Amino acid sequence: MRKKHPVRIEGVYIADRRDSFVTRPVESAELQYGGIPGDLHFGLTKQAGSREPMYLWGTEIFNRRQISVVSMEECARIAENLGVKQILPSWLGANLAISGYPKLTLLPPGSRIIFPDGSGLLCEGENLPCIQPGEIIQKQFPDQPRLPSRFVKAAFGLRGIVCVVERPGKMKKGDQADLVLED
Amino acid sequence: MRKKHPVRIEGVYIADRRDSFVTRPVESAELQYGGIPGDLHFGLTKQAGSREPMYLWGTEIFNRRQISVVSMEECARIAENLGVKQILPSWLGANLAISGYPKLTLLPPGSRIIFPDGSGLLCEGENLPCIQPGEIIQKQFPDQPRLPSRFVKAAFGLRGIVCVVERPGKMKKGDQADLVLED
Repeated sequence: MRKKHPVRIEGVYIADRRDSFVTRPVESAELQYGGIPGDLHFGLTKQAGSREPMYLWGTEIFNRRQISVVSMEECARIAENLGVKQILPSWLGANLAISGYPKLTLLPPGSRIIFPDGSGLLCEGENLPCIQPGEIIQKQFPDQPRLPSRFVKAAFGLRGIVCVVERPGKMKKGDQADLVLED
Repeated sequence: MRKKHPVRIEGVYIADRRDSFVTRPVESAELQYGGIPGDLHFGLTKQAGSREPMYLWGTEIFNRRQISVVSMEECARIAENLGVKQILPSWLGANLAISGYPKLTLLPPGSRIIFPDGSGLLCEGENLPCIQPGEIIQKQFPDQPRLPSRFVKAAFGLRGIVCVVERPGKMKKGDQADLVLED
């Protein structure tokens, strides 16, 4: 049995600066096989890195990290855990921020996010936190101690998911979408 | 933390007949992005069907069902559940049969199967049983009642997984491989 949950698209973002994984808000983004054209993580393949130690460093592998998705509710919980006012999806390098499904990070792999135009993302699982977003957050809140290392723990189980584009199309801020869960 | 489990490649199979999903044993198979060239399920994309009702029937979508993997131990349990002598991986349309990890169907999505040449498959989750393999099994055991409908229940949670090719290369009968599990 499949279950559907309506969610709201609170933000759409792209990482199109050469020197940073930080994303910037846009009104909408085109989804192609491989992700968002022009985005840092766009591509059907990527180079194996520290997240894929089962492959030789730098080997070309399939890119299962095409699109990063976070929930506004989990961003608020990370902020609370760190004792800061807010965590913007951009600082986490998210491409999509939703509300209405608070425990997004626990979404079972194989679930989908279906957009109004019929396009869809396929959940590939939890996005495990690394240290880099903590460095960005530290710049925002210079008075808080050790945010880079504290971020990894504070964001564990809350940092959202990675997806591949299953059906190309468009995702647009303000739209409603459906989470479709298996069983 | 990642865990590694050695497994043995008991069989490699290809579905290269126009009119059937049944696979035939081969000594080895080439893995490309998209699957095994010449195989029925080869392709980076496929048409949405009854397994993907969230998309319009026939729409082009990403193919997460490139490679089907079963375990010899689970095939034996399906045979036991059906009261038949054996279930061959070919009858299930499997491309790869392994031994040494009995509960393959429960392998968490995001896990990998890494082959000796460095190539690898990425687990996309359980392969839910449908009625067709039961029809093939019925032909093998004509004296057994209602195998097509009984198969779905008998194979539930035992029918193996579907994978995408994460790193191209080759899989070869008799080799050892590593299952790499997240946490």
